Amino acid sequence: MEVRALVFDVFGTVVDWRGGVAREVRRLLGPSVDAEALADDWRGRYLPSMERVRSGQLPWTPLDALHRASLDDVLADAGLVDVPASVRDELTLAWHRLDPWPDVVPGLTRLRAAYVLAPLSNGNVALIVDMARRAGLPWDLVLGAEIVRHYKPDPEVYDSAPRLLALDPSQVLMVAAHVEDLVAARARGLRTAYVHRAGEHGGQRVPPPTDPDADLSVRSFGELADRLGA
Amino acid sequence: MEVRALVFDVFGTVVDWRGGVAREVRRLLGPSVDAEALADDWRGRYLPSMERVRSGQLPWTPLDALHRASLDDVLADAGLVDVPASVRDELTLAWHRLDPWPDVVPGLTRLRAAYVLAPLSNGNVALIVDMARRAGLPWDLVLGAEIVRHYKPDPEVYDSAPRLLALDPSQVLMVAAHVEDLVAARARGLRTAYVHRAGEHGGQRVPPPTDPDADLSVRSFGELADRLGA
Repeated sequence: MEVRALVFDVFGTVVDWRGGVAREVRRLLGPSVDAEALADDWRGRYLPSMERVRSGQLPWTPLDALHRASLDDVLADAGLVDVPASVRDELTLAWHRLDPWPDVVPGLTRLRAAYVLAPLSNGNVALIVDMARRAGLPWDLVLGAEIVRHYKPDPEVYDSAPRLLALDPSQVLMVAAHVEDLVAARARGLRTAYVHRAGEHGGQRVPPPTDPDADLSVRSFGELADRLGA
Repeated sequence: MEVRALVFDVFGTVVDWRGGVAREVRRLLGPSVDAEALADDWRGRYLPSMERVRSGQLPWTPLDALHRASLDDVLADAGLVDVPASVRDELTLAWHRLDPWPDVVPGLTRLRAAYVLAPLSNGNVALIVDMARRAGLPWDLVLGAEIVRHYKPDPEVYDSAPRLLALDPSQVLMVAAHVEDLVAARARGLRTAYVHRAGEHGGQRVPPPTDPDADLSVRSFGELADRLGA
């Protein structure tokens, strides 16, 4: 079976969450805050917050609301207790305003001529739509966690892509910079492509150069388009 | 509250189903078949087929499968019993290959600069994506029946638009050429715009020129963009 659709992890794979969140922290909280450290701390609470939903401890909660709640903990731990609620709300929208890596828009534009393209992110739909409109990401449609009310790596998220696109799982290629996302996608029959994003953690923690278990390992969306003949 | 997103009925409102289906009937069944009559008959089975899902008589079934099943009845009633299954499958894809009315792409392109745009159709996601890629419809995302596994006019479909876009219902404008779609949208708090599509039924049945209950009545997506200041 030939690949017909590409679905993408977003935070880290398509966009630079660390740089974008730090930029908004500086803009809204001023230069005295360690913006990168705050971004790292906030992102560190991402998996645990979703785990509370995945385990059933919390009912379905969109990522914006999880981000907003974990921000309160981040600010408390940083001693920033006086930040007004309106600024906290605005700062939560930082996740809607992340910039894509430089290779993303040219790569997606090439890929779109040959493949259906969709994000398959844990970000809620409004977040993903705002991001796409701001950055010019040429998605054909928005898939992901909120559509099925399950967070990755729950199998429902991966299964939703071939189901809604009326394709066999082997006709869908999951693209991600995180090995564990690809492990979960492969378990549902999707093909997988690993993208090496050396800068996701600001160079402090460097991901593996390739994923030997993936169908493809690339260093950019341009290389992905090359390898897929797009 | 200001309108932030526009959601669109598709068959008849965005695309000319009658002309497109008739074109594919002629291509696949030859010139001896009354293509427009066959298109009208097929479309006539659309509401009853969805009603079987809405009433619970059938489990959730995507529109492609409903179209494929009703095609068998259409062909039987037309005495075309020898059409092979492969041709029936191909003919069902006619609904993926419908052309937009001439004002649609220029109008949507203007509207998209100011508003989030999404189809809110009973068409299944794969159908809507194929149609959009072929016709160049600049949707931000795909909403609609299959996402929530309910057919319009079930309230779940209308409710899904503001929910997934994180908007108040009054910030979402439903655009349709069918008064009953707008009645159901208003009942869920959406704003409504009526589009007069005189040619939907090939002139045999002419819809009302305006919907006095809608917020807006227009004759094209260009006029809709004018009225919305886009």
